[in-house]
Amino acid sequence: MSKPLILVTNDDGIESKGISSLIEVAKQYGEVIVVAPDSPQSGQGHAITLTSPIRLRPREIFKDIEAYECNGTPVDCVKLAKNILLKNRTIDLCVSGVNHGSNASLNIIYSGTMSAAMEASIDGINAIGFSLLDYAKNADFEASKIFAERLIPIMLDFKGTKGQLWNVNIPKLPADEIKGVKFCKQGIGGWKEDFKIAEDPRGEKYYWLAGSFVKNENASDTDLWALDNGYVSVVPSQHDLTDYNGIKTFSYLNEL
Amino acid sequence: MSKPLILVTNDDGIESKGISSLIEVAKQYGEVIVVAPDSPQSGQGHAITLTSPIRLRPREIFKDIEAYECNGTPVDCVKLAKNILLKNRTIDLCVSGVNHGSNASLNIIYSGTMSAAMEASIDGINAIGFSLLDYAKNADFEASKIFAERLIPIMLDFKGTKGQLWNVNIPKLPADEIKGVKFCKQGIGGWKEDFKIAEDPRGEKYYWLAGSFVKNENASDTDLWALDNGYVSVVPSQHDLTDYNGIKTFSYLNEL
Repeated sequence: MSKPLILVTNDDGIESKGISSLIEVAKQYGEVIVVAPDSPQSGQGHAITLTSPIRLRPREIFKDIEAYECNGTPVDCVKLAKNILLKNRTIDLCVSGVNHGSNASLNIIYSGTMSAAMEASIDGINAIGFSLLDYAKNADFEASKIFAERLIPIMLDFKGTKGQLWNVNIPKLPADEIKGVKFCKQGIGGWKEDFKIAEDPRGEKYYWLAGSFVKNENASDTDLWALDNGYVSVVPSQHDLTDYNGIKTFSYLNEL
Repeated sequence: MSKPLILVTNDDGIESKGISSLIEVAKQYGEVIVVAPDSPQSGQGHAITLTSPIRLRPREIFKDIEAYECNGTPVDCVKLAKNILLKNRTIDLCVSGVNHGSNASLNIIYSGTMSAAMEASIDGINAIGFSLLDYAKNADFEASKIFAERLIPIMLDFKGTKGQLWNVNIPKLPADEIKGVKFCKQGIGGWKEDFKIAEDPRGEKYYWLAGSFVKNENASDTDLWALDNGYVSVVPSQHDLTDYNGIKTFSYLNEL
């Protein structure tokens, strides 16, 4: 049997420490192809590049690994991998990350890391996004690697419906202080924005997005609770955004 | 009682025909403030601008309406409106669009129009994204206006939980051929990409995203069916991406 084909991508860019860590793990389980942004793309969500062409350039930065950088978004990277580089092959798994910073709770919708993984899952490719709760460039990814080693083979062996998508977040703790993995739901939280307002050298006012994350619940079945309590959180996620209760609430308006 | 405050935004840019049509409707129901991108931002999904400052400039292009253009993404527009312009006021409704082109089915996740509306709903503001199934710059928005006139007052009067989010798509039909409104779920479909591959004037290869939308189901409870059958589709939508069945499927792995 041939080795599984694993696509690795991220949103922090091909030169980030997090993607190197993930490649080190992924290559134990299959043939790895890397397609990642040539520059940091945090906060790109599910953006795609429509109004300009994009480029794909080979990079020899990971020993014995075929790797490409792309000047588009994380989702562009996955689209190019699926449709150009690996057009005639079956991708067995897409892993994205390891992101520098949390993608728990509401962060999933802003996250290029998770959107890249989702883009793979849309086409029936099982996908995992990994994020470490440490924004530092030089963060310690040892615990992330240990849990990637636990989760990647499980997803590769999973026999159920294809297109599974896991949002995995790893607490900023030494590996031996992490209690294990919790499959859980997306906790309720959000950003309290605090724009920096200043004037540019030309005297025109500008706004620069900043803020802090606020947790609005801490129920024990959420990713927020799991992370606060020393667990790796895994939120099975999907691209069906339908609010099914809403359909019931408003069905009296049908045929309006 | 004071008039409701209605935030209007879009992703096609402040000079598009679709936003003018939506403003004409919205101003019948409240005080309108417009904050929209200064250029087309289709396909921006939930992208936010983190690595550079953004600007907000007043524009006098809609008669008697306070309007601003922003050089950021659609979600940036809503964040600036909530946190800067309308910081001390309650926004009663956010309407986004009318988008030139479909945001039915999977398109919701790529859509700047819907992400802007979702960004409002996250903060408990009821929000509606409107899209017309016609990409033409000069599309006929008369039917869109008629259905916006039906749906906006209903959302303004809605007494239930705040933060409702509707993805409204209008078929490309004369108003009198549209049968009514269907509250329905997001149908399954997706893009079959067909990148244009060419060489730039410097001889370097480039890729330009193109493709066609493929419907993968046509069940009568979906937006795809509603639109194909002459209805306006309304998909109540949400930002909880948890796959609750997935939690059950994988719960045997807890504490791994």
